Formats: sequence, structure tokens, C-alpha cells
Amino acid sequence: MPHNKSKIYTYYLTVRGYELDSYGHVNNAVYLNYTEQARWELFRELGLLDRLIADNNKIVIVENHVKYIRQVRLFDKLIVETQMERSAHFLLFHHHLMNTETKKTVAKVTAKSVFIDEQNKPCDIPASLMEFLREE
Amino acid sequence: MPHNKSKIYTYYLTVRGYELDSYGHVNNAVYLNYTEQARWELFRELGLLDRLIADNNKIVIVENHVKYIRQVRLFDKLIVETQMERSAHFLLFHHHLMNTETKKTVAKVTAKSVFIDEQNKPCDIPASLMEFLREE
Amino acid sequence: MPHNKSKIYTYYLTVRGYELDSYGHVNNAVYLNYTEQARWELFRELGLLDRLIADNNKIVIVENHVKYIRQVRLFDKLIVETQMERSAHFLLFHHHLMNTETKKTVAKVTAKSVFIDEQNKPCDIPASLMEFLREE
Amino acid sequence: MPHNKSKIYTYYLTVRGYELDSYGHVNNAVYLNYTEQARWELFRELGLLDRLIADNNKIVIVENHVKYIRQVRLFDKLIVETQMERSAHFLLFHHHLMNTETKKTVAKVTAKSVFIDEQNKPCDIPASLMEFLREE
Repeated sequence: MPHNKSKIYTYYLTVRGYELDSYGHVNNAVYLNYTEQARWELFRELGLLDRLIADNNKIVIVENHVKYIRQVRLFDKLIVETQMERSAHFLLFHHHLMNTETKKTVAKVTAKSVFIDEQNKPCDIPASLMEFLREE
Repeated sequence: MPHNKSKIYTYYLTVRGYELDSYGHVNNAVYLNYTEQARWELFRELGLLDRLIADNNKIVIVENHVKYIRQVRLFDKLIVETQMERSAHFLLFHHHLMNTETKKTVAKVTAKSVFIDEQNKPCDIPASLMEFLREE
Repeated sequence: MPHNKSKIYTYYLTVRGYELDSYGHVNNAVYLNYTEQARWELFRELGLLDRLIADNNKIVIVENHVKYIRQVRLFDKLIVETQMERSAHFLLFHHHLMNTETKKTVAKVTAKSVFIDEQNKPCDIPASLMEFLREE
Repeated sequence: MPHNKSKIYTYYLTVRGYELDSYGHVNNAVYLNYTEQARWELFRELGLLDRLIADNNKIVIVENHVKYIRQVRLFDKLIVETQMERSAHFLLFHHHLMNTETKKTVAKVTAKSVFIDEQNKPCDIPASLMEFLREE
């Protein structure tokens, strides 16, 4: 079964103080903020943001699977590595969050997404994006 | 294999305006805010909050699995039904989010958690909580 | 100088766990989430939400002034009392946040807003809203 | 009346997608996230974070005054310039938010803060910080 995967895209961030909760570590929901932003940056890098808007295409997350591996704290520097993978009409984002100083993995997130058209109906992955997925 | 499950606890909420993102629906990360609060309310209802603090026990989420089933919008009224399940030294929270007016499921979230002691080491599920889990 | 004020509207909320920061109290930015929601609820109560959308009118905050008076903690029950006041082409929202159990004021927020039309130009306060402001 | 002011500190950020609300611009509360982080960065740059923790000193915001001047959108690059000013036992933070590309001011925030000791009582501005404030 051939899988279509993209190259790996990177997004860097530094943990902010208000992202901590009363336990003093980054709150569990904030990891999804980080991965969402990694996807926005990826789409910008591919030059697809304007295209999606012009085509009235939106991308909607239908599943998120987060594995929290190490606690993350104020001023930790993280890299989010993201690889896209096509699976039927879904587009998967495999996010790997690492501390850039310790080189240790802090979390893994898989986001499953689908594109919807102007009638809010699921549609194919846009051709403009498909060209960034390659046979492995 | 005997499983220990709790009864089902409920938490009600109404979607707030600032929880929407630029797509006009509740942002994908906000669902984890809702389920976190469902757990805080559950622990309060069981009278365990002060006990956990007194015992220097914290509960840490090690995994979140979110399935987004229907878009949720401003002023939607939701119920979060939560059932706890013991699995080895992990405590699972099965969250079922429904629109109370349409009675339709909007999301399902499974959170896997572990308790840690004052040295940040994983420890057993506190006995004070175990009494709310029963054989099925 | 005649001022036009509305009656006082109320919005009730309970502090959620993820709204706390690493100091264990509600984060300073979250008060603006509370007051924003008080305004959404007010507009819904007045039946103005659909009207504003139909007229392509948006309300934009141009100033927020927050006085934090007492720290607010997990499960505190708050009431947000809101009174609107017209001042030239601005609409002011005077928000008074109180703990419903202690009856003590926890914060005061004044939000200054302006309506904008479909060209993003400032416009008059909609007539549909003006009828809820009265001479004092 | 002599005023004690610091030099101007800078913090750079890029607007993230989840910081937008349903109006497609940065939500009004998020500006307080930005200015809070500017203060965390400032304290880190001054080497004061560990000192404050060691001395059991916390800094609490008692007032925030935000003027929103221009709407801010996805991927806008902002600089937050921050100057501290001592006023009696209060420490003021004057934040100036600018778009680094257009050079235009997007918001101004003044945060009034007070230090509290381990008994949650207001206390003097720590001497370790006072050395960064100078006569003008």
C-alpha cells in the first residue's frame, strides 16, 4: 500500500509564562495550540494559505492523539517537527515535539484532518497540496 | 480481566464566544479545556481535591485522544459525561461530549493519567479514589 | 450632559481549573474572557446577535481598563454585572465582577467599544441597540 | 517629583492562528498574554526570576489599561517595547506594541503591579530590581 508523505517541516517556539497551569508546567491543552500553529506555519511555507481561502476550502481536525512524554516548563525551547501523510481522503499530521537543548522528545501528536468545501462537505485533498506529498 | 470503573459523572457548560476560532467554531484545543474542567468538577464532587493536596499527590495527563464528531458553536449547550476506569497504574477518563438540545455526540475524549508523588515519581492511584471504582 | 445608560445585566460563572496560572490564581488575561462572554450573553439576551450579523455590523473593543481587586481561585463563583453607557459614538460596558458567596468585588472592567460596518469603518451605535439605552 | 524609570526592553512575537477569534483578528484578551510574556522575558533578561522565587516574592498585576489602536492578524510580526517605572510602592510597565513591518503602533498597555511576600502581603519593590531603575 503506497503511502504519500511530505518532507519534515519545522516550527520553533519558546514556552510562555501564561501557558503554564497551577501545576507549573505547560497545560495539556496548550500542546494542541503548538501543533495547530505548526500547521499554520507549514501552510504558509507552502504558499497555500491564500489558495485555500480563494478556493473556499477549510481544513478541519477530526482527531487528535497526544502523547505527553516529558513535562515542559517556562522558557523551554521546543521544535515541532511535522510530517504530512495522506491516508484515503484524510490528511494526517505527525508532530514530534522536542526540547532543542536536551534533544529529548517531550510529546507526540497525530492530527487527522479533512478538507471541507464551501457547503461544509468533505472534499478531496486539494491538488495544490498533493504536489507536496510524494511516494515513499 | 476485571476492570474497575466508576459511575458516570456529568458536567454542563455553554460555549463561550472567545472559545471560537477564525473558522467560527470551537477551536480544537478548547475541547481539552472542557474535559479538564469535567475532571476538576468530578474530583470536587468526590471530595478529593483537598485530600490530593494534603497527600502531595498530583494527577498528570500522559495521553489525550480526541475524536471530533460535530462542530460546536457559540451558545451550544454541552454535557460532558465522564467515567473513570482503572488500567494497571493508570487512571483513564472516558469523556463523552453531547449537545444537550440535539442529543447528538459532538466529541469523545479519552484521557490517560497517572498520579505522581512529591518527588514527581509515578505512584499508585490513591486509595481515597479507588473506593469510587467498582468491579463490573 | 445627558448620558444614556442601560439597565444592569448579569452573567454567572464558576472559575475553571485551566484558567489558573502558575501562581494558582486566575490569570490576569482571563478576566477579559469573562467580560467578553458577559457581553455576548447580554447581546443574546437583547436578541441582537442575528441583527448585527444581518446588518454586517461588528463591535470592536478599542479600550479595556481592568482593576484587579481580589485574587480569584478555582471554583470561585462570580457574577459579572454589566451596564452599557453611550458616550458619543462609543459604547461603554461597565463590568463589575463579584464573588457571589463573599459578596466582595473582585474586579472592575470598563470596555470601550465602537461599531464598524462592512467596510471596517466606524459607524453609529445600531438603532436596535439604542432602544435599550435610556435617559437617566 | 523624581521618577525612576528603566531602559526599554524588547520582546518579539509572531501572531499565531489560534489567537484569532471569530472576527479573524487577535482577540482582545490575547494582548494581555503578549504583555505578560514581555514581562517574563524582561525578568529573565535581568536575571531576577530565580531571585524572586528564592525570596518568595511574587509580582501581582493590580491594573491593566489596554488601548487597541489597530487590528492585528495572523502572522503579523510584533515588537513589545517595555519600560518599567516606579510609582510609590507600585511598579508600572509601559508596553508599546508595534507592527515591525509597518512600524505602526497596534496597542498600548499599562500594567500596574505590586510585589507580595510569602504571606501574600504587599511589600517593597525588591532591591535587586530597583538597581535597574534610574533617575531621569
